[in-house]
Parts: sequence; structure tokens; C-alpha cells
Amino acid sequence: MPETVLIVGGGPAGLEAARAVADLGGRVVLVERREVLGGTPDEANYAALTPHLGSAQEALDRLRAGVGRPEVEVLLGSTVTACRGSVGDFTVTVSGPDGAGREVGAGAVVVATGFTHFDPGRETQMYGYYEFPDVITLPDAEKMLKEHRFVRPSTGEPPRSVAFIQCVGSRDRRIGNEYCSKVCCGVASKEAIEIRRLLPDCKVYIFYIDMRMYGYWENQIYWPAQEQYNVNYIRGIVTEIVGKGDRLLMKGEDTTMGRPLEVLMDVIVLSVGMEPSRGTREIAGILGLEQNRYGFIAAPGEPMDPISTSVPGIYVAGAAAGPRDLEDTMGTAGAAAARALGVIRSARPAAATAGA
Amino acid sequence: MPETVLIVGGGPAGLEAARAVADLGGRVVLVERREVLGGTPDEANYAALTPHLGSAQEALDRLRAGVGRPEVEVLLGSTVTACRGSVGDFTVTVSGPDGAGREVGAGAVVVATGFTHFDPGRETQMYGYYEFPDVITLPDAEKMLKEHRFVRPSTGEPPRSVAFIQCVGSRDRRIGNEYCSKVCCGVASKEAIEIRRLLPDCKVYIFYIDMRMYGYWENQIYWPAQEQYNVNYIRGIVTEIVGKGDRLLMKGEDTTMGRPLEVLMDVIVLSVGMEPSRGTREIAGILGLEQNRYGFIAAPGEPMDPISTSVPGIYVAGAAAGPRDLEDTMGTAGAAAARALGVIRSARPAAATAGA
Repeated sequence: MPETVLIVGGGPAGLEAARAVADLGGRVVLVERREVLGGTPDEANYAALTPHLGSAQEALDRLRAGVGRPEVEVLLGSTVTACRGSVGDFTVTVSGPDGAGREVGAGAVVVATGFTHFDPGRETQMYGYYEFPDVITLPDAEKMLKEHRFVRPSTGEPPRSVAFIQCVGSRDRRIGNEYCSKVCCGVASKEAIEIRRLLPDCKVYIFYIDMRMYGYWENQIYWPAQEQYNVNYIRGIVTEIVGKGDRLLMKGEDTTMGRPLEVLMDVIVLSVGMEPSRGTREIAGILGLEQNRYGFIAAPGEPMDPISTSVPGIYVAGAAAGPRDLEDTMGTAGAAAARALGVIRSARPAAATAGA
Repeated sequence: MPETVLIVGGGPAGLEAARAVADLGGRVVLVERREVLGGTPDEANYAALTPHLGSAQEALDRLRAGVGRPEVEVLLGSTVTACRGSVGDFTVTVSGPDGAGREVGAGAVVVATGFTHFDPGRETQMYGYYEFPDVITLPDAEKMLKEHRFVRPSTGEPPRSVAFIQCVGSRDRRIGNEYCSKVCCGVASKEAIEIRRLLPDCKVYIFYIDMRMYGYWENQIYWPAQEQYNVNYIRGIVTEIVGKGDRLLMKGEDTTMGRPLEVLMDVIVLSVGMEPSRGTREIAGILGLEQNRYGFIAAPGEPMDPISTSVPGIYVAGAAAGPRDLEDTMGTAGAAAARALGVIRSARPAAATAGA
């Protein structure tokens, strides 16, 4: 039996897991819904990565190069539509771009279907994302920064003032996303630095509940943003955005000062959090994987085992299991690869091993 | 050439990496300074793990069972004292309990030497850890909780009031530890829940700068602590602890109310952060690994590559690279195992492979 691991999703987690399996002498079938590899960092036009502002393009190129080898078969424009069997002997149906189904034999499966950015439209107009062109999201800002520009969408001119609003779609019991998405504090601070580099005369504010600069991020992003780039951090709650002339009036409360807040901005960036991607929701149903209350793939053995799903032989890597930064994603990807190949080698009947 | 990975450190990261290498068909030599496996969770008497309060003992037993197999040679009471060679062909000198040195050939090395708890004595008496017996640390509290009790060390009686002070030894520029240790918010909240379970009449307060309940921890620990266990969270800065009668007077500022804070407590728990362990500092010198400004092992390729050190063929897993929670630790351990074995298989000359 070939030591084949089926990997679902061609983003950073899936690409890293594929490379790791191949490095270990295993075979991979990598299934990706889109016509290109790279996942959300590619689809959402990531420019510079948090925290070091390294090039996302170069990072993705390295990941793609890691799977350009005979041991890895990449199926683009393809999705998993059915699965039967059990650990050591799964038969997975993959539907290609022409709609034709193909059966793939695999000893184990790694789910790396990732996240999607929270859609602020769901929050019934509160922040006016679908009403005001100058209210944008972190990925909208990222797309402009990738083109080395940052403008007011309504006019095409550089803004004089930009505000980030943190925790949009995260830590919010009303919409059911009580979790913290982990990366938005870092990503917003990174984009704030980039905007200040591009537009030295533009004031940039970050309105936060608390800044979760865990690990080294405080020194890597927060202090440079404050001290080198003069980004202004204001602890506050923004409750409403209304149009005023051709600008945006942000209303809320400055919770450090304990007083009402009303400031005019040219551009407002909503720091949207992570939700399970469509692929993550769908694959859970197809593979029969337990999900948590938010729709992410459950890892019942966490924290000691963050990669095993509820189905033996099926593992989860990266943000398909919940909000994860790139470090967490790459760690769990390598771990899932090792576990998937390890379980195949353990599950293989002794006779087959002897005969190999 | 046998596919041997030398793993330094027998805590969770080292044990998980060893199991993963063995599952993949590789051979492991695991070097542990102490006479028992388990690392800091064993040495510091961890009782219940964050966030689910699962048994640390059971988790360690599972990890130890994972290395009880012929492919894993465990060298207890041993340390690495020298290393020569390069990726694919290291020769590592291991000194055993009798002081005798032994040379081990290994294709790759995984450093899993972990962290140590910050020693609050260094902060020149500010919190009186070495002055007042009822000022203790997170691991001191953990040790009592493992014995299913929580008392005032000065009297042996149950306290009526307990306060946790967050960020002791973390996020502190004066002592040079600017980083956030990631886990202390969660661990303090977990211990607070355990104290409230043991002592329903004891008031428990957590004095914090901000609560970094990233990912799912807000729902998993923070809300249960608040809603089920009535732990009191107070945003404040504690500047001084003085004795008053047989109790402790905490002085500082309630930063939500913006007013001075003076409260009497029976026990004060310092939520100490992570620093590099002695083993981490020493192994960096012996193996010639770049360290970051705090003494942790540098991973120059992070965030895309959180496990490669500055020396090819040597990888880092777990908290030897900086503050990490158990999920991060187990993820990087599996990833380091995969990378170590993968690099050996890639580095092996084609002739040797053909002849194998």
C-alpha cells in the first residue's frame, strides 16, 4: 500500500503539510478548490506578513516550490465530495473542474481548509461597511498596500486620517463569536505602520478594547508602531459611524478618559476576525468531523493534542481548527503531517511491512 | 546510517517529538538532565492543565508511555556537553550521571529544553516574595492545588481572600522582559477557579493590566471564572505589598476607577512569566545556536518557519524558543520531529539509500 496522505486545502497549512510528508518519504494528493495554490494569503492579496513585514509573495513562492515534486500530486479546481473507509484505508472521492469524480486511496487525511474573514455586513449596518465606501476591512486595506498605495476609495486621494476599529466580529456575544481571533491586533498594527510609511502626513489611530500583543509582538510591532511610526493607540468603544460631509464621524467612548468620543476620519478600517471558511464547514460534513460551536473543526484532545479530529486518521492543521497565527499554523501543519504518516506506518499490517 | 534524531529535553515537547520520530520509523536518543521524564510540568508539580483542567499527571503518563519503545533510548541524569559535525552527521557528547562522556551519532537534533518560571526575587523586594511567606507564585499555588488544598503558608489555615497579580516578570522593560508570557492570564484564572472550588467562602481577585484570553480561552476560562465561580477581575497596577498585622496590604491603583487601591489580602499569588531555562541557555552555547535578546533560542525564519534554528539540522520545539502554551508546544514538537527526520532522509547520500 502506498503511504498516501490526502491533504485538503492548498494554503500555507496544506502546502507545509504536503512538503513535510514528501520529505519523510510519503506520497501526497493535495486537493485545492481554487485554480491556484496559496490559500487565503493569495486570495486576499496579503502583502507583508505579521510581525516582520516579510513578503507574503516570497513566502508563498517558497511554499509552492516545496510541493513541486513527483511525490506530491496537486489537484486544482477540485473538491472532496465523499469519503469512506477508515484509518489506514480511506477512499476519497475528489470532483475535478469538469465535474467528474475520481477516487483516491489514502491512509490518512489532513484537513487544512482554513478560515475566512468575518463579513461586517452581518452586523446590521452598525459600522456602515456596505453604506460608506471609505469604511473598509483589514483585507481591503491589505489589497491596497500590496499595490503600494493607500487611498480613500471614495475619491482616490490619500487620506489625512485613518482609524482602525479592533475586534469586529470577534469577542462579540451578540453575533456568537465569543473567541478572540488572535492576529487582528498584530495585523492592524502592521498595516498602520505601512500606512504611516506611505503617507507620513496621515494620522493613524487604532481604537482597541485591549491590545493582545502576546509573545514577542509587543516589541516586534507595538513599540515600533508607537515609537518609530507615531501610530496613536486609543482605548475605546466605537458604537456608530455616520457620514458628515465627505468624511466619517466615529461615535463612541474613550474608555481611558471615560468620556464620549466623536472624531472625524477619512478612512475607517474594520479589524475583522476569523470565521470558518466555506471549505471548513463543508469538509466537516463530508468527513463526519465534530465541529465546535463556531463551526471550526474540533480537536477534542487539545491542548495536548491540537491536531487529532474526532475521526481516527483525520487530522486538522492551521486555522481550520480556529483562530491561529502563522507560527501556530506552520507548527500544526508539520505536526499533522508527522501524525498522518506515522499512523499509516503503524496501521499497516505487519505482513505488508514484511513484504515491502 | 541509522536515522537517529538526538532530542535534548524530556518535557512535553521532547517527549512528543520523540514519539513522533519513532512513529515515523526513526530512532531517537532522548537526553534529560533530571532523573525522571516530564520536564517542568513534573518538576513544578502541575496539577490541572489550562484550559480544560485535565489532569497533568495523566497527560504526562501518556507522553511517557509514548517513548517506552525500543526505537527510543532515554538517557536520564544526562546532559549534552559537546557537539561536532553538521546536518546529517552530528557527533554529540552526552555526559551521564557518573560523569562519563559518551558519543552519540545523530543526523539531526531537536532542542526541547523549555523555560523556567521567572524568579520574583530579582525585582528587588517590590512584591516581597522573599519577605512574606504568604506572597507566593503561580507554581507555588499549583503545588498546593496538586495536594487538593490551598492554605496560608504562614498559618496553614484556609485564606479568606486571595489576590493574583498578573505580568510579574513579563511586559516589564525595567527587567528587560518586554515580552508577554502568553499563558499566565489563563493559568491564573484556572487556579482562581480551583481555589474557589476548594474554598467557596474565599474571595479571589485577579489584578490585571489586560486579560489576554486569546483564541477560545475567553469562553473556556474567563467566563466560567466570572459567571460560575465569581472570581473578581480588577484592572489595576499593584505597586507595593506591605505587612499589616498578620495580613498583606496591597497598594496600587484601580485603573478602571482611576483611584488609589489599598486592600488587605491573606494570600497574594504572583503570576510569574517564562524565562529561558538553564538548559536552554547552556545548550545554545554548546550547539552554537543564535539566541534572541532574552536568551531564548532564535528561530530566524519565523513566522513561516518557527522551528529551524540558526544551525542547519538543529531544530527547536516548545518553550525553548519563547513563551508558548501547550498547544503551540505540541504543534512545534511534531513539526520539529518531521523536519528532523525529513532532513536526515534528504541529506543521506543516494548511494546509501540505494544500498539500504
